[in-house]
Amino acid sequence: MNRLTDLFKIKYPIIQGGMVWCSGWRLVSAVSNNGGLGLIGSGSMYPDVLQYHIKQCKKSTDQSFGVNLPLLYPNIKEHIDIILKEKIKIVFTSAGNPMTYTKLLKDNGITVVHVVANKKNAIKCVDAGVDAIVAEGFEAGGHNGHEEITTMCLIPQIKSLIDVPLIAAGGIGSGAAMLAAMSLGADGVQIGSVFAASKESSAHINFKNKILLANDGDTKLTLKEIVPVRLLKNDFYYEIENAYKQNASKEDLINILSRGRAKKGMFEGDISNGELEIGQISATIDSIKSVKKIITRIINDFNFEKNRLLQFNL
Amino acid sequence: MNRLTDLFKIKYPIIQGGMVWCSGWRLVSAVSNNGGLGLIGSGSMYPDVLQYHIKQCKKSTDQSFGVNLPLLYPNIKEHIDIILKEKIKIVFTSAGNPMTYTKLLKDNGITVVHVVANKKNAIKCVDAGVDAIVAEGFEAGGHNGHEEITTMCLIPQIKSLIDVPLIAAGGIGSGAAMLAAMSLGADGVQIGSVFAASKESSAHINFKNKILLANDGDTKLTLKEIVPVRLLKNDFYYEIENAYKQNASKEDLINILSRGRAKKGMFEGDISNGELEIGQISATIDSIKSVKKIITRIINDFNFEKNRLLQFNL
Repeated sequence: MNRLTDLFKIKYPIIQGGMVWCSGWRLVSAVSNNGGLGLIGSGSMYPDVLQYHIKQCKKSTDQSFGVNLPLLYPNIKEHIDIILKEKIKIVFTSAGNPMTYTKLLKDNGITVVHVVANKKNAIKCVDAGVDAIVAEGFEAGGHNGHEEITTMCLIPQIKSLIDVPLIAAGGIGSGAAMLAAMSLGADGVQIGSVFAASKESSAHINFKNKILLANDGDTKLTLKEIVPVRLLKNDFYYEIENAYKQNASKEDLINILSRGRAKKGMFEGDISNGELEIGQISATIDSIKSVKKIITRIINDFNFEKNRLLQFNL
Repeated sequence: MNRLTDLFKIKYPIIQGGMVWCSGWRLVSAVSNNGGLGLIGSGSMYPDVLQYHIKQCKKSTDQSFGVNLPLLYPNIKEHIDIILKEKIKIVFTSAGNPMTYTKLLKDNGITVVHVVANKKNAIKCVDAGVDAIVAEGFEAGGHNGHEEITTMCLIPQIKSLIDVPLIAAGGIGSGAAMLAAMSLGADGVQIGSVFAASKESSAHINFKNKILLANDGDTKLTLKEIVPVRLLKNDFYYEIENAYKQNASKEDLINILSRGRAKKGMFEGDISNGELEIGQISATIDSIKSVKKIITRIINDFNFEKNRLLQFNL
């Protein structure tokens, strides 16, 4: 269809974001089997767990799939060893410097994509020689940029700087949004929240149900002193808010965040005290659907909206 | 062209936001003479000044134009008297309850549009009987919503709630962005920052030049304790930031903001100490253009991008 589908050998330019706790082999292979690119969320996996999910994906799909590798992951060298050993062909990196591992991965025949939230990092990506870039806006769930640039404003700016394919992320929940992102210059989209709430997502059912209840304004970008993250407003969030009101230091915030908060919320189902990373588009998610239904609907919407717009001649 | 152009009797579904200090009769009539809908920015005008600009517009254009009326304006009754006396046919209201004046204006044959940033206020608009709704995302300059919903996420949500025409605002700086907004469900767009930096804008040249220099991350949404506002990061902004770091109260912030900060910056050209209200899309503005050039370019881009997208069949 376009240079992005050519690059990954997929049918539709739809990538499933490799979100922590949500992106196990069932989700990944379902996305890949339905024409998109599934990404294993290695950021919440021990190395042996990552290897297990890779092997399961290989049994469950003949199509392309990849691994999302946050560069701040502590055991990253072990993850990379597994990625090489298992002959993974596509790696998406984020949360770090693309110069660090891109060459190593590409020297091993891997297609490398890096996620950015501002122009400066897009230029670093170009210097690092990545094969494509994800530009992720302020509205996206999980870890985010400091500058708070929205998808609407970010995509055209990154587009003007790069020649490699551009993938838009943040706020993409429908075929109409995919069309919007491509109007702005993206070659395709990375979708997070909608897949996090899917039937095949490995997230806890409590978290999925909480996503369904989210309304506009129910997520917030916070914890910028540590790493900016967008999450649902729950008891944990209000604990952070109170800490801010009492002039908490970075150390205080780190103590409150502690370890395993995202696992507690997104994987173990403690929706009050866990950290629930999800995007603003969660407000539009009203049921838990299969990946097949999600992707079919996106494609149908995309075509429908495209035809609708044809009539507008200015 | 569509129900929005029918509603306002304009050629293109492009509205120039009635921004304070920027939206004098020259800008308004230039936009209206070039096929869009110009709006006088009454929020920064004394009643006699508003009347002057209305009269100048009537001399300068035969096309539709309107008045933007922020509902928190102190002399609002005097403004409304002038609007009625001068037989203004289109009024955009914002920053307040649409129930307050909509009926009065509509009873006087005026087309009323209200600006919202969340679903709750969109429903109030429907109850108030407005003729169209502007949904303005987090990336927009000036006064903004508390929930920080981006244009990408807001437009589909508002679209799903209303039957009247929907206008997208926030982050619209090109024909591609206009196409994106219409993909998401908008009938047209309201453009602010790009017109603020135009030749015909009544803003001070120092402010226009400052807009040209803006890079990604150079604006911030702040002062949520008073009224959330997006502005350029300058000395005044850092004064506010320091106050926050020292746990300033709402009264402290009001004192720092004091009176006339926006006039100081946007109209009088003190770009260090003034309040410079502008949107994130300012990072893409690289020269001071005439309204004619701006609108021509938007239309050409819109058509070009639409034809480019035609080839994508999923």
